[in-house]
Amino acid sequence: MAEQKATNVHWHEGDITREHRAKLLGHKGATLWFTGLSGSGKSTVAVELEGRLNEMGVLAYRLDGDNVRMGINKNLGFSAEDRTENIRRIGEVAKLFVDAGAIALSSFISPYAADRDQVRKLHEDAGMDFIEVFVDCALEAAEARDPKGLYKKARAGEIKNFTGIDDPYEAPASPEVHLHSDRQSLDEEVEQILAVLRERGIIPA
Amino acid sequence: MAEQKATNVHWHEGDITREHRAKLLGHKGATLWFTGLSGSGKSTVAVELEGRLNEMGVLAYRLDGDNVRMGINKNLGFSAEDRTENIRRIGEVAKLFVDAGAIALSSFISPYAADRDQVRKLHEDAGMDFIEVFVDCALEAAEARDPKGLYKKARAGEIKNFTGIDDPYEAPASPEVHLHSDRQSLDEEVEQILAVLRERGIIPA
Repeated sequence: MAEQKATNVHWHEGDITREHRAKLLGHKGATLWFTGLSGSGKSTVAVELEGRLNEMGVLAYRLDGDNVRMGINKNLGFSAEDRTENIRRIGEVAKLFVDAGAIALSSFISPYAADRDQVRKLHEDAGMDFIEVFVDCALEAAEARDPKGLYKKARAGEIKNFTGIDDPYEAPASPEVHLHSDRQSLDEEVEQILAVLRERGIIPA
Repeated sequence: MAEQKATNVHWHEGDITREHRAKLLGHKGATLWFTGLSGSGKSTVAVELEGRLNEMGVLAYRLDGDNVRMGINKNLGFSAEDRTENIRRIGEVAKLFVDAGAIALSSFISPYAADRDQVRKLHEDAGMDFIEVFVDCALEAAEARDPKGLYKKARAGEIKNFTGIDDPYEAPASPEVHLHSDRQSLDEEVEQILAVLRERGIIPA
């Protein structure tokens, strides 16, 4: 009898899919890939967006230097090879979060178009939304902010291969969201992103 | 005026934390680390548990060979060094999921105690629940099942360093959950795990 009773509670629908999790959470998963110069405001927008999404009951999770560079990518340096592997791993982690139903907010300079395009392909091949958010900001404005004092060090030659100084930043050709952080308010930026999430049916209208 | 209106919608509570996400989801995050021989039934239990948790409105996500070995760990082989790096990365990904509020179900043989203990430490140092689930099964029973025909190949010498045949399986000394898949029903196993999740306050009682 115990055996029979137990059998009744079996889960019969096979593996849980993205659709099951979207139903549970009330929204779809997606990756928002923030890219832009150091000091352009990527993390500022991502933090604000995460707060707004949480208020709306949407599960979002930020991937940034704090939890990635110190964790899964702590055995990577800053050679060209390691930078590419850094972005590849972040892309794979973001994809797992999308599969789990969450909105992954990836916030890294990610200066090379080829690396970003590889992550885009990973997502699109799996039928997942990849939304490239270009946090566009004039170099002078980013350098004037210099929140971590990194431009100063790069100008002094203490940091080599610094994006925008002695290493290129390859701007996205056709990002899904193009922000201008040197002339938009934070709220305008967040609203612009939310509008795209609604248009795509990722979050409720 | 538009500026002022926009300012009102700012998120004022700083970074979203694990506590915010637990409130949103209605449960805590945790890692359930399934370990056991090939064919012991790790994935079978994890799939069933994931279904049951989804029915209960709990966000769970399985990390397994399909989504990890083909994704973030696709550049790793089976050398001792690569096996350790494989488990390290899975542990770091699981930790990110816990931080995001989900229940990560990791389903890998993970035969070495030192590797598992490293992942445990990662979680416990961050104040996160790490629940080792030992899917205990006699080698003969696992080999008799041989769902992927791997034991047959290992016995024939076609696969080297196969856990249980010519590579050791280091059983957990004090797992949080000790299942006996060669004599328990699937439902008994799932109920045993759910009881621990309730006791620890990870899911509602």
